[in-house]
Amino acid sequence: MAVKLTEPTYVHSIEGVRLATAGSGIRYTGRDDVVLIEITQHSNVAAIFTQNKFCAAPVTLSIDHIEQNTPRYLIVNAGNANAGTGRLGMDAAVATTKAVAGFMRVTPQQVLPFSTGVIGEVLDATKIENTLSSLSESLSEDHWLLAAKAIMTTDTVSKAYSKKINIAGKDVSITGIAKGSGMIQPNMATMLSYVATDLEISKQVLQKLLSQAASKSFNAITVDSDTSTNDACVLIATGKSQVSYEILTVEEQDQFKRELCWVMQMLAQAIVRDGEGATKFVSVCIQQASHFNQAKTVAYSVANSPLVKTALSASDPNWGRIMAAAGKCDDEDLQLSQASLCINGVSVMERGELAASYTEEAGKQAMQAEEVEIKIQLNLGQAEHTVWTTDLTHEYVSINADYRS
Amino acid sequence: MAVKLTEPTYVHSIEGVRLATAGSGIRYTGRDDVVLIEITQHSNVAAIFTQNKFCAAPVTLSIDHIEQNTPRYLIVNAGNANAGTGRLGMDAAVATTKAVAGFMRVTPQQVLPFSTGVIGEVLDATKIENTLSSLSESLSEDHWLLAAKAIMTTDTVSKAYSKKINIAGKDVSITGIAKGSGMIQPNMATMLSYVATDLEISKQVLQKLLSQAASKSFNAITVDSDTSTNDACVLIATGKSQVSYEILTVEEQDQFKRELCWVMQMLAQAIVRDGEGATKFVSVCIQQASHFNQAKTVAYSVANSPLVKTALSASDPNWGRIMAAAGKCDDEDLQLSQASLCINGVSVMERGELAASYTEEAGKQAMQAEEVEIKIQLNLGQAEHTVWTTDLTHEYVSINADYRS
Repeated sequence: MAVKLTEPTYVHSIEGVRLATAGSGIRYTGRDDVVLIEITQHSNVAAIFTQNKFCAAPVTLSIDHIEQNTPRYLIVNAGNANAGTGRLGMDAAVATTKAVAGFMRVTPQQVLPFSTGVIGEVLDATKIENTLSSLSESLSEDHWLLAAKAIMTTDTVSKAYSKKINIAGKDVSITGIAKGSGMIQPNMATMLSYVATDLEISKQVLQKLLSQAASKSFNAITVDSDTSTNDACVLIATGKSQVSYEILTVEEQDQFKRELCWVMQMLAQAIVRDGEGATKFVSVCIQQASHFNQAKTVAYSVANSPLVKTALSASDPNWGRIMAAAGKCDDEDLQLSQASLCINGVSVMERGELAASYTEEAGKQAMQAEEVEIKIQLNLGQAEHTVWTTDLTHEYVSINADYRS
Repeated sequence: MAVKLTEPTYVHSIEGVRLATAGSGIRYTGRDDVVLIEITQHSNVAAIFTQNKFCAAPVTLSIDHIEQNTPRYLIVNAGNANAGTGRLGMDAAVATTKAVAGFMRVTPQQVLPFSTGVIGEVLDATKIENTLSSLSESLSEDHWLLAAKAIMTTDTVSKAYSKKINIAGKDVSITGIAKGSGMIQPNMATMLSYVATDLEISKQVLQKLLSQAASKSFNAITVDSDTSTNDACVLIATGKSQVSYEILTVEEQDQFKRELCWVMQMLAQAIVRDGEGATKFVSVCIQQASHFNQAKTVAYSVANSPLVKTALSASDPNWGRIMAAAGKCDDEDLQLSQASLCINGVSVMERGELAASYTEEAGKQAMQAEEVEIKIQLNLGQAEHTVWTTDLTHEYVSINADYRS
């Protein structure tokens, strides 16, 4: 059911990052569900994690580890989120990092654990430990696509994007993978994404670049308004290209930022395109807002409205629901008496009045497209923000009501 | 599909309030869809309206009229919300109030217009005007139940509640009607409710009593998180019982407040029980919160989570979704490490740990009930709040995707 999304077939490897996958049997059979990512020495690593107050044990432990250490290994499992199980959950996360550390001869603090899957079931750490021997033997720079597959849960298509760019006369690559399909409204990051570059970037700058790119990618998507307990996004800079971000010109730095943002946007949009039950890929663009937060609030309000999302699934140009969803925001500066609404280029409202040219037929055609852009110009200021989302379908209800993911 | 909700068969009439219904043909055929409510002289009237910034023309006009005048007539139509049509919408609302005023020999400012139905279509005011002759002839204190039926849109059951109480040795009655089924997360009021009492209450006190009762009734429900453009709740005090609120003892005043709140809660809960596609009536009780807003935010976060609502529809005790929805709130004081969760009396989590007694089977049984109470004790303070909601079903998607309401 994914909307215009196909399996990735090739990504550039990143010198200094090796990956391996294995099957642990934690939940799935006949597929790999554990990933080990090895990061070469002298790399820098930045990460952002979910802001959910019911966050999972591996999130708490990873935040603790990365604060004082540069990670050398990331260990990821799919099928069990290791969330909501109290002390047992923390014990399992600690046991996993200790096992990886012992096997790879680093300290446990140099290992970050990540989990994704069902919440509230106790994770059996020994099942992950049993895969370590096989994982350590199959580490390779060419295993990004295998890793993208191994971290999937309700995803129907694996997600990987990559870009090779020429900066300061040298080739620099950016490669990333991600997973996610439901419980998607990341707040600081999305449910597991790993992005790496061979550019050399200091830890401090790396964290800033990650936050900036996330605000326009993973933090700008929603499938169902539910923020996961396990969201995490990691950005690795190995420096193996022998090019340093610090010595680039401003134009070259901007070029890198744009390309990094592009890779992360493609990954974030892939999550939306593969959103549970999605039949449409929807961009909600709020323009001419008083301030950024207003644009963001209105965008999410429209993007998360069940009435807007069901109208989208039916290709019903019931645009009153769109404006009502915009209007329900709790923002004192917001007023809609001068707002304009455009659906896939069809003008519906112009400065608070019905557009003279609008017809129900034109609205219906605009809504029938697989990709729909809802643009609201508030006529209040200069700020803007775009959020990507899906429609709400019977299939979404089936996926989430008919079996436990 | 309404959850444990049957048609009302009797309500007490309120001396000083007469009602009439008629069929206008605005949208429906073969049913009444216009209501005229006449309020006797010397009554007091309080009202609260939607906070939606895309509010309908009749809301804007009613707010304007009630500010300086005591309303004598309320004119309500179902089938067209008269929202989102700019100047044409305001013209229609003004024309309606002028027509009623002319017919009933009051000023237009003594008439409040209300509309409910589809947004974005121009309202033909002449269709309402054509019913006025018939309406004026059929006004009666016994027409509350007819009025409850005439204001329905996607409602499947009409909503009316009534209470007769003895205060200071005299009988005092409270009677109310309401409508609503979708686009329900009222913010200050719900989509059309009219409540009247024959107690004598000053305008200022009446407004306060209405706000207090609304915060525990209409402002504590959600079907789909979407706040309507037309929500309005009116409280009328005719004084015909010859009992004045001002001279009651504190205990008697409290008794009246309790009974008023009860009538409004029954009406609000009826809207949830008749929520679009609902198969369950769900109470989300947040206790031991740091402050009221925290309790309210967490309650709505759980009550509006699509993942919680689909799990409810499947009777799946996927309680991780409940705690994840609680945790996604943007509240700095919130933490869940000591929280307890109880579903219909079955303890699931106790102070951040899995309850030793909990079994999946017990959870499943608890979730299978038609009425489900989700209770989260945060262990952070003394504040509490309860929000009532429904599950999210295939039927909800069908109602909102398969035809326009």
